[in-house]
Parts: sequence; structure tokens; C-alpha cells
Amino acid sequence: MSIEQQPEAPSAEAIVDLLGALAYGELCAFDRLAEDARLAPTLAGRTHMSRMAALELAHHDALTGRLVELGAEPIAAMTPFVAALETYHALTAPSTWLESVVKAYVGDGMAADFYREVAQFVDPQTQALIDDALTQGGRAEFAVSEVHAAVAENAANAGRLALWARRLVGEAISQTQHVLADRDALMVLLMSGAGDLTGVAGLIGRITDRHEQRMAALGLST
Amino acid sequence: MSIEQQPEAPSAEAIVDLLGALAYGELCAFDRLAEDARLAPTLAGRTHMSRMAALELAHHDALTGRLVELGAEPIAAMTPFVAALETYHALTAPSTWLESVVKAYVGDGMAADFYREVAQFVDPQTQALIDDALTQGGRAEFAVSEVHAAVAENAANAGRLALWARRLVGEAISQTQHVLADRDALMVLLMSGAGDLTGVAGLIGRITDRHEQRMAALGLST
Repeated sequence: MSIEQQPEAPSAEAIVDLLGALAYGELCAFDRLAEDARLAPTLAGRTHMSRMAALELAHHDALTGRLVELGAEPIAAMTPFVAALETYHALTAPSTWLESVVKAYVGDGMAADFYREVAQFVDPQTQALIDDALTQGGRAEFAVSEVHAAVAENAANAGRLALWARRLVGEAISQTQHVLADRDALMVLLMSGAGDLTGVAGLIGRITDRHEQRMAALGLST
Repeated sequence: MSIEQQPEAPSAEAIVDLLGALAYGELCAFDRLAEDARLAPTLAGRTHMSRMAALELAHHDALTGRLVELGAEPIAAMTPFVAALETYHALTAPSTWLESVVKAYVGDGMAADFYREVAQFVDPQTQALIDDALTQGGRAEFAVSEVHAAVAENAANAGRLALWARRLVGEAISQTQHVLADRDALMVLLMSGAGDLTGVAGLIGRITDRHEQRMAALGLST
């Protein structure tokens, strides 16, 4: 692929790619949160995580609705991102309830920050829709309370979960790089939106800062 | 338990039992449809079934909301029904996409008919809420089109799916009997609502008729 000086407006192809990746991401999030809800030690925890899952599907519907408005076919728009997202989830399948809670907050939070950054480079209507789709109401409070309780009960949980979070971040970065290497339009959107490599570094810096804030809220080291 | 002449109004205990059973049923339906969506041969089928799942969770929320209005604690109200519903789903876990489609239509349809019948014996507000929660918009058309296509492709599917439906019905009846034997208030609600054994026979007859209509729509023998 070639990176060249772009016109101001992002390409239609890039917007469809962005919405397609995010729509498939939300479908996966639904699927995985619904499955992880089964790991909950209580019925209350299970209903809470099930509700998070249903919210993700509502977001998925909003994103595919926007794709249709733009004249794109949602299934075709999502298909290029199936492999990377499936790989991410296969490599980060939680084996405990706490791992699933940390993934839902730290992993999804970092992905949301990335999409939010890229969404700044597209039209205001799509941007507003994406911001809305990335709302994760109450997830922080839930994760913080579950993790604090678990660490209070057994201090060894802190180290285990910090390692787990590191793995989530590593796999997320790796899959994002695969996707960008494969989708020229998205890469061009990111590079021309950020302006230059300094802009890209700033974007990565902001995502990293917010990740560190989440880890601090959980009381886990990065 | 004893069946005696009841006053007109159903007991608060029976209403909480009915809402609790149904709320847990919806949570399980969410969980299972979300899982079965993975069996879909296409991304379109997967999103369709995922949407069904999210709708079940919205119903679950409406039912637990009503429990709270009535002064009941949703988790406590659902707990007595966990074992029977888990057993039903464990004994009827679909191994193919078609089995999951038939279960979502035939199995859930029969359960919905049963709840609808019993809901006639409670206050109008609870009844309206339950009727609303049992709406399964579009599920019939979806199941009919998937099953017809599968049978057109391979006629042997018809026999296999008819057997599968019979198993679903058998397990559903068996678990319903366990629940009724265990929950006096529900049994009393059913018996006094139906009036007498002839009334109960009529109720069972109506549920059976509707089951046969669904099987006929699918083109499967009962």
C-alpha cells in the first residue's frame, strides 16, 4: 500500500470499513459477553453481564443501520474483519469470571478508545453514531467493584489479573496491526487523519493513558 | 399439597412464582439463543438469532421490573426455577443449526403457550406484561423458511427434525410437571384458574393444537 497526501474528506470505503469493523466487533462482544455471563458466580452477576451483551447488540444494529443508509451491505462490510476479531477472542477466551470482567472493561475499553480516535476523522453524523455505540454505561463501576472484592479476598488475584490485562493489550495491538496492514483505506484514514507520525504517536499516547487510568481504577499495575 | 376451593384472586405467591419462572426462562432463552447463533451457517443467520436473544433479555428486564413493582426480589423469585430450566436446556442442547432453529420456534412456542394460558388467571396488568414478553416477532417466518429450505435440500431432514421436536415436547412436559409438583402456589393457580380437570384438559388441548399448527407450518409430522 502507499501512503500519499489525501484530500480532506475520508473515502467512502474507509467509512464503510470503520463501520464494518465496529459492527462485527459489537456482534462479537455480544456473543462473548453472553457466553461469559455463564461464568458468573451469582445470578445477579449473570444478569448484569447478559444486559451488557444485549446493549452491544443494540449498538451493532445501529451501526449496520448506518451502513445501509450509506448504501453498503452490512454482511459484506463486516466480512473482512471476521478473522482478526475471531482470532483476538480465541486467544483471549477468559477462563474465570474475573478474567471475563477485566476483559469486558480493559480490552473493550481499549478497543473503544481506538475506534473513538479514528471516528474523529469521519463525517460528524457517523462520528456521533460511533461515539454512541461505544457507550459502556456502568461497566467501569461493575469491573472496579468485582476486582476490588476479589483482590481483597485474595491478594494474589492482583498479579494474575495484571498479567491477564497485559495479554489482552498485546493481542489487541497485534490484531489491529493485522487489520491495518490488510485494509489500505483504513490505514490511509488513520494516517491522513492523524496528519503525520507525530499525530499517530499522540493518538497512541492518548489510548495508552486511558488504558493506564482503567488499570489504576482496578488497582492493578500495568 | 392440597387443592381446595380458592378465593377468586390468585395468591401473591403464585404471581411471583409465575413471573419468576418466566423471567428465568427469558434469561435462559437469551443465553441459549446467543450460544446457538454460533451454529449459524451464515453471518446473516447469526445476526438474526443474536437479535432474537437480545429481545428475550428485554423481556427478562420487563418481567423483573414487574417483580420489583410487586415488592419481590427478582433473584429470589427466579431461583426456584433454575434447576428445571437448566435441566431442560441441558437435555435439549441443539447439535446443529436446524435443531436450534426448531427449538427456538417449537420449544419456545410451546412454553409461551403454557405461560399465556396461566397468565389468564392473574391480574390484567401482569397478564398484559406477560403477553408482551411472549411476543416472538418473526420467529415463525424465520423457522419456516430455514426448515423448508433444509428439507428441500435433503428430505431426510424432515424425519430427523420431527423426532427432535418430539424430544423437545417430551422434556418440556417433564420439567413442567416437576415444577408444578414442587410449587404449590403455581399448581393451585393453574387448577383453580382452569376451574376443574375438564378445564385443565381444555388448556392442554389448546396448547397441543397450537403445537400441531407450528409443526404443520414447518412441514413436519407430529
